[in-house]
Amino acid sequence: MGNADNVYPDKNVERAHRVAIPPPQPFLKSFTASMKETFFPDDPLRQFKNQPPSRKLILGLQYVLPILEWAPRYSLQFLKADLIAGITIASLAIPQGISYAKLANLPPILGLCESPEKLLTASMLGNVVNANENPTLYLHLAFTATFVAGVLQASLGILRLGFIVDFLSHATIVGFMAGAATVVCLQQLKGILGLEHFTHGTDLISVMRSVITQTHKWRWESALLGCCFLFYLLLARYFSKKRSNLFWISAMAPLTSVFFGSLLVYLTHAENHGVQVIGQLKKGINPLSITHLAFGSPYISTAIKTGIVTGVIALAEGIAVGRSFAMFKNYHIDGNKEMIAIGMMNIAGSCTSCYLTTGPFSRSAVNFNAGCKTAMSNVVMAIAVMITLLFLTPLFHYTPLVVLSSIIIAAMLGLIDYEAAIHLWHVDKFDFMVCMGAYVGVVFGSVEIGLVVAVGLSLLRVLLFVARPRTMVLGNIPDSVIYRSVDQYPNANNVPGFLILEMNAPIYFANSSYLRERISRWIDEEEDRLKSSGETSLQYVVLDMGAVGNIDTSGISMFEELKKSTERRGLKLVLANPGGEVMKKLNKSKFIDSLGQEWIYLTVGEAVGACNFMLHTSKPKPVAADSESGSDNV
Amino acid sequence: MGNADNVYPDKNVERAHRVAIPPPQPFLKSFTASMKETFFPDDPLRQFKNQPPSRKLILGLQYVLPILEWAPRYSLQFLKADLIAGITIASLAIPQGISYAKLANLPPILGLCESPEKLLTASMLGNVVNANENPTLYLHLAFTATFVAGVLQASLGILRLGFIVDFLSHATIVGFMAGAATVVCLQQLKGILGLEHFTHGTDLISVMRSVITQTHKWRWESALLGCCFLFYLLLARYFSKKRSNLFWISAMAPLTSVFFGSLLVYLTHAENHGVQVIGQLKKGINPLSITHLAFGSPYISTAIKTGIVTGVIALAEGIAVGRSFAMFKNYHIDGNKEMIAIGMMNIAGSCTSCYLTTGPFSRSAVNFNAGCKTAMSNVVMAIAVMITLLFLTPLFHYTPLVVLSSIIIAAMLGLIDYEAAIHLWHVDKFDFMVCMGAYVGVVFGSVEIGLVVAVGLSLLRVLLFVARPRTMVLGNIPDSVIYRSVDQYPNANNVPGFLILEMNAPIYFANSSYLRERISRWIDEEEDRLKSSGETSLQYVVLDMGAVGNIDTSGISMFEELKKSTERRGLKLVLANPGGEVMKKLNKSKFIDSLGQEWIYLTVGEAVGACNFMLHTSKPKPVAADSESGSDNV
Repeated sequence: MGNADNVYPDKNVERAHRVAIPPPQPFLKSFTASMKETFFPDDPLRQFKNQPPSRKLILGLQYVLPILEWAPRYSLQFLKADLIAGITIASLAIPQGISYAKLANLPPILGLCESPEKLLTASMLGNVVNANENPTLYLHLAFTATFVAGVLQASLGILRLGFIVDFLSHATIVGFMAGAATVVCLQQLKGILGLEHFTHGTDLISVMRSVITQTHKWRWESALLGCCFLFYLLLARYFSKKRSNLFWISAMAPLTSVFFGSLLVYLTHAENHGVQVIGQLKKGINPLSITHLAFGSPYISTAIKTGIVTGVIALAEGIAVGRSFAMFKNYHIDGNKEMIAIGMMNIAGSCTSCYLTTGPFSRSAVNFNAGCKTAMSNVVMAIAVMITLLFLTPLFHYTPLVVLSSIIIAAMLGLIDYEAAIHLWHVDKFDFMVCMGAYVGVVFGSVEIGLVVAVGLSLLRVLLFVARPRTMVLGNIPDSVIYRSVDQYPNANNVPGFLILEMNAPIYFANSSYLRERISRWIDEEEDRLKSSGETSLQYVVLDMGAVGNIDTSGISMFEELKKSTERRGLKLVLANPGGEVMKKLNKSKFIDSLGQEWIYLTVGEAVGACNFMLHTSKPKPVAADSESGSDNV
Repeated sequence: MGNADNVYPDKNVERAHRVAIPPPQPFLKSFTASMKETFFPDDPLRQFKNQPPSRKLILGLQYVLPILEWAPRYSLQFLKADLIAGITIASLAIPQGISYAKLANLPPILGLCESPEKLLTASMLGNVVNANENPTLYLHLAFTATFVAGVLQASLGILRLGFIVDFLSHATIVGFMAGAATVVCLQQLKGILGLEHFTHGTDLISVMRSVITQTHKWRWESALLGCCFLFYLLLARYFSKKRSNLFWISAMAPLTSVFFGSLLVYLTHAENHGVQVIGQLKKGINPLSITHLAFGSPYISTAIKTGIVTGVIALAEGIAVGRSFAMFKNYHIDGNKEMIAIGMMNIAGSCTSCYLTTGPFSRSAVNFNAGCKTAMSNVVMAIAVMITLLFLTPLFHYTPLVVLSSIIIAAMLGLIDYEAAIHLWHVDKFDFMVCMGAYVGVVFGSVEIGLVVAVGLSLLRVLLFVARPRTMVLGNIPDSVIYRSVDQYPNANNVPGFLILEMNAPIYFANSSYLRERISRWIDEEEDRLKSSGETSLQYVVLDMGAVGNIDTSGISMFEELKKSTERRGLKLVLANPGGEVMKKLNKSKFIDSLGQEWIYLTVGEAVGACNFMLHTSKPKPVAADSESGSDNV
């Protein structure tokens, strides 16, 4: 057992420091400051500070049009790098684009800008409109959803609400992406097995039922071809991962698959033997679709819902991708600006027959590996894609659908980040639960269910942290005036006559009654323990408030009740190290006056020292003598 | 400017303490512990511990039937006190009960157990069923809602979900009760002004429109009578408040009002001159109503919604009231047990023609002041009420409705706790906002809107606390090794070459990107400041983690990125005092290995001391020399 005297080796610490109440601030000033911190945490105007007006103008223009930033220092080296990168991505983008558009039940021609969020569009719209029976309506709804997503994204950015995306945690995105990828892979069973009829449901159970009930219609030619190409694509990715200068193998693999697949079909006429091909593709670039936005349709609410869900997910993914690359290259990402850009892109896209877009991770990664220097690589890609659309679509006539399915499956398997999930399990069980919640929700329920489960669990965790804060008993670290949790530091000693507790959450309505009960339980347990072991009885309850960030009026009532109940038990309540916000509110509510300023100390060490001093001088009770005699044992 | 050397006066502190990683616990054990803390924070089985089996049995029976606890020590003194208290409450309960039941559009006979939650029942059911046109259906729905509320309350208690009630903060309840009281008072304008037709809406605007458009139908006799009685009731309460031994004046005032009001009408035949009276009341006790539960009705969803809302509010109020009295008399309240009791009472009530019940605050206060000793006072009250119902209802024939309205208004005005609202404004602006949100929502919208606004704002506060945690710069308190926020302690000194930051929230997905940006902004600002003032440049960024209660995988990624970005700037990241949970997770994710265990210190003081030591010995850079020379200035 610790010794009450030698916890205070340093004589001069007995001149205890006074706990300050921060200087009062006018309400308006503190309100403005906290608003600024909430909505402008990135201080977007920082770079404009202390600059001459001409420089401010240039910076402002560069802020709106990033091209002005890199155009002046663009060189031939840059162009060469961008050309190579652009063509590399185009070779990945064209077959993937056609595949994804087929996946979303859209005409292949529209799918040249894409991401897994297409799946959401397909699954959410597919519930109300059958794409095969009513393709025009479906298409118009998809454009409308894209438009809604764009407006939502841009306005979130303009309203500085970028932080909403932060509520989709990393764990949620891992689980969600894996779930979406699984669902997409399941859908590809249609293409791989050459089935003509397939369920419209996206959940595992409907798909498996649909597959198993049609065993007699499976086409082995199609399945064989699909497995071969899938093996080839996965092998290519494996090598690319092993050596990063072989990135182009993986990037070229889809295009070569399409090429060899088409050649094979053309030579063997496999289209007559159960291998479906793309067939006729409409030539030309995308028509204007602004007149097709289906705002008058009875399905508009579905389109809006789809737009909102996909818009938020696309944002979260886009910003997460942006951040990863920003970290590599040490530049700064302005989340809200990014949002406005993505939103504008979708609004423009929805009016020109594109649909939901972000910078998908896989393509950004290829772009990065291919050595792109500036946004010019995207221009190169766009030109390559346009040429393809204008002149080369007949080349895709014999492309077998099963190859497209393989390309999709290969891409999707890359999104199932099982290593991340294992890491989550090792580091943080709750994050793993969130991740699995998202995955299981998407695979067995629907995209929305998965999202709601994951976000709900994440929020529950935050609320539980506040509603059930940990209280810890502190002990004295030997030969110091430091007090730390006895759970974490098993060598920390109890101080006779003291119960020292630490809470590490704000004291709010959500936890004030819990804390009241918990603290009185700590006191009960400590008194029982002391009684049964015959030690010095309890005199002081010291609360270390260092980790209490804030307090509300329910919390203050809790302290008032705690003070009453400790007094009734003959104990003295002592506070150590309350922070600025807490001191302000305790002062305003007169709790400091009622407790007595002299019972609030700067550190636990000072509190224990001063109380021990009082215990041994002013109140020479038998209890104190007992603790005195104990000092010989140490 | 502080001095880098004299912050470390104590030589022996340089043997820095090692930050411990708490001993690993099996997952199942820690999971069980946290479940227990979440659902059984009150440790309900504590009193059974270490007791012989016979004692356990007695305690268990007393737990279920509290009468066994007090019956053995019941005495004649107790009976006398309980008799007086019981009759006093009955004299308050009978007229109030009849008034409240009229208020909820129920036959007066049913209103003998009551609370302001009646208003909710009336307003929510009134939206779909007109009580005057279809009284039977209305009544059955009210019973059904009560039944639902009871089932909900009992099952929340059985499932140990009592903590849900904590999310209705004190501020919410103050605002909500005041709003409900205002709405009820507005409804009484019908009775006071003697109007026959009145709006079914409960919001301020509908009521005022209804009152103002009917100015020609106002009855001055009724209004005069109402104001007189209201004045009398308020006066009685004023005196009772002034001297607590006059409590019976206020308690008796409703009964005397009813008596004198009825006498006046009987003598003057005012019922023929615009003063409406109760008229015929059905004699007898409540019939069984179990067969009337309207589960087959098309309005069942409304009844269920009503039951849920009123059930939760009644619970919150009941438990808050219970807690207040428990505090007075120093006994312990088991929230979940309380819930089961209230729920059972409502289930039983709904089957015997009672409806929604709690222990309303005003009546409990009278009971307490009247000196009740045990639950026997409630038995006395019940007998008094039953006698009234069986034999004395004809006495209420001439009771004017306007007196009942006055009784209700007087009771409701007591619930508008404007002093509490002013206190909220002074102590905590956000709590005031929550309170006003509830009030304005109830008065201008509806009961549900008020609730949703208030609970939404309260949760927003918790989420914002986590999403936008405060980061504070710490400085050295002169002549100590203590580091505290420079905002709170203006005399704390910066340490040259160090930026010391404290965060006081868990580092979760919701704030990890904010914190990353905020910390790099702190570094930017500090470097700008140092550059412009020509001081020692930054060498170390010390993060005080003492107030970081927990961390998730997003938070760990944040640290990894922060480490990279500080390294790129040539700064060293140092952690001080990470707690047990945080150390555990940083260890599991290998961040400790990547940072180096030697860069984690037990206190900020030890971190600064050790880094300064390294700065001055191993790396004699010009920077360090600069800081050395600075030590002469102090």
